[in-house]
Amino acid sequence: MALQTILFDFTLDAEKTATSSQRQDVARVVRNELEHVFSQLELAYSMESLDGGYFAVLHENKETIITCRIFQQGLLTINVEYYLADGKEPLMSFDTMRTMELILRQKLDSDRSKYLPPIKRGGYIDIYMTSSDERIIEYDIDTLVYEARSPFQKIQIMHSKTLGNMLILDELQNIAESDLIYTETLMGRGIENYEGKEICILGGGDGALLYELLKEKPKHVVMLEIDELVMQACNKYLNTICGDVLEKRKTEQYEIIVGDCVEYMKKFIADGRKFDYVFGDLTDIPISGAPIGECWDFIRTIFEHSFKLLKPDGKFLTHGNGTSCLESLQLFEDQLRLLKPKVKFTTSKAFVPSFMEEWLFYQVTFA
Amino acid sequence: MALQTILFDFTLDAEKTATSSQRQDVARVVRNELEHVFSQLELAYSMESLDGGYFAVLHENKETIITCRIFQQGLLTINVEYYLADGKEPLMSFDTMRTMELILRQKLDSDRSKYLPPIKRGGYIDIYMTSSDERIIEYDIDTLVYEARSPFQKIQIMHSKTLGNMLILDELQNIAESDLIYTETLMGRGIENYEGKEICILGGGDGALLYELLKEKPKHVVMLEIDELVMQACNKYLNTICGDVLEKRKTEQYEIIVGDCVEYMKKFIADGRKFDYVFGDLTDIPISGAPIGECWDFIRTIFEHSFKLLKPDGKFLTHGNGTSCLESLQLFEDQLRLLKPKVKFTTSKAFVPSFMEEWLFYQVTFA
Repeated sequence: MALQTILFDFTLDAEKTATSSQRQDVARVVRNELEHVFSQLELAYSMESLDGGYFAVLHENKETIITCRIFQQGLLTINVEYYLADGKEPLMSFDTMRTMELILRQKLDSDRSKYLPPIKRGGYIDIYMTSSDERIIEYDIDTLVYEARSPFQKIQIMHSKTLGNMLILDELQNIAESDLIYTETLMGRGIENYEGKEICILGGGDGALLYELLKEKPKHVVMLEIDELVMQACNKYLNTICGDVLEKRKTEQYEIIVGDCVEYMKKFIADGRKFDYVFGDLTDIPISGAPIGECWDFIRTIFEHSFKLLKPDGKFLTHGNGTSCLESLQLFEDQLRLLKPKVKFTTSKAFVPSFMEEWLFYQVTFA
Repeated sequence: MALQTILFDFTLDAEKTATSSQRQDVARVVRNELEHVFSQLELAYSMESLDGGYFAVLHENKETIITCRIFQQGLLTINVEYYLADGKEPLMSFDTMRTMELILRQKLDSDRSKYLPPIKRGGYIDIYMTSSDERIIEYDIDTLVYEARSPFQKIQIMHSKTLGNMLILDELQNIAESDLIYTETLMGRGIENYEGKEICILGGGDGALLYELLKEKPKHVVMLEIDELVMQACNKYLNTICGDVLEKRKTEQYEIIVGDCVEYMKKFIADGRKFDYVFGDLTDIPISGAPIGECWDFIRTIFEHSFKLLKPDGKFLTHGNGTSCLESLQLFEDQLRLLKPKVKFTTSKAFVPSFMEEWLFYQVTFA
């Protein structure tokens, strides 16, 4: 069940909406056309604004409510909104929308028009996610596979018809079965040589990075993940990307430690433990609702500790943000520049299917 | 300049919206909260429906219009709409939206809420496209690079910050600079051997397929493209994907014929000309507005002629549709099954960045 919001807009010749009676004419054409679809249509309310705008509310049985606006700049918008119960047929099919758009476009002599597929609101499964630069993306999610709340976050596994199972933490998409390219770009597959190396993963609870690294015969990998429940969920629902690495917590090849990575990093530093590679594979924003400042403080803390764990020729590999998010990437790089001793970095990028955008990755070494 | 439509929704406990006075209470909370952002807010109209619904129109100077609905099923929706002129600051920043969502969620004791980034309507550049299964996708398009109307279609080159230049024909995304994977999957790079082969491309006006095929040293490629203007646009704005192959129309290695591919196929058939590979690289729907039936007739005509041009061990390679679009793919395969002599086919798929979805490709041979 969900509310359907259908948005149409038509560009009009501004000269044809200049007077009140012209706007009334446009409104009449719109109403006549809507009546083909909604036969019981009634006008509930209308108003004109001083700057030449018109607004009307129409409805059918007070259930389907249609608002119509005309702007003096030469724009007509129509919003159709009704509640669609589960299993019911939509009141407007795609054919009906398309036909209405084409007829109104012609009758109003509009040279540009548009309608968006119905926006579904209020459903339990959220199919709209936002890219790092605040764009709307509708996913083909059909099932909520798993949902739980851990002490750290809300964990969901959703199924997308084309991306497979997706791990969503606090409403943010993390990784999906479609996203091998994410892990391969993060680890620089084909560029880095992991054979015989000692590796530390910060975060990485989905298991994908550990799984792919183990294929490259490292000496040992230690993974520091805070959220036991994330690992259980991924082990069960994402094993195309994590294999069986989350089944066991300790083998000859690797160890998964459940705990706060900063605490364990401090311990490793005190023990003088060193790694060839440290991976920053934590979620983008460490704690939901944390102020921006605290977030960057946390990221810098991670950087500082990571470099204390690296051998002189070691590398810190991590993800950045969407490549279109220049401001956030700049802030990220500012944090890197604050580090002492000085570091230098290179970047790589990949289009990550489940993010529906290109993502930037960092390779950081001592300068 | 564009109209901003901002959509909020909150799931409420249905028991707390059961009576008229409860709904009035909810409406009051909403209004109080909105007044923090829109200080001149006025109530223009409200109505109750028999089934326990509530609807109100609020406005500020008749410019910002806010509609608010409460549904007895336990859902509150708020639509905020105003015209944003070029260069003006939005009335609601992302911070304001997020804050309003969080405060209302708390005050209304809602356990699920959502807002979408502002939907921009009426702008000259259309940044919303629809996937093959009717999902909304907002692109990071920042410039209209080129626009022209040929005798066959409306041709646009738009620039996306992350996908590069995109070729859009009659409002449909065709190919972008980011889409080498599309061409490679269509041609089965690494699987097919084109060395010394004779190849015919139907369509392919963007030049990407011709460019990639020529790298594999075929004996000769003939390309049949109807739209001269598409080739001019791609040659100018998409040369990262087509190189310089559209500069010349005839070389030792290839020939580009500008004309109706069906006519030329008939001519080739009459001449007894045969190919190792025929590529169907035409736009998805041959003529905009053509009825569904005619579209499939056209596709079947293409198939029939293509197979008359193929050597006995030749292959017909073409694109299908989005993998989530099962019904359309089924219809496509039905057309293949109607062919005489009988054919058999395999499929491959790839996530195409500029389509923001996974696409299916067909490899068809004589059975």
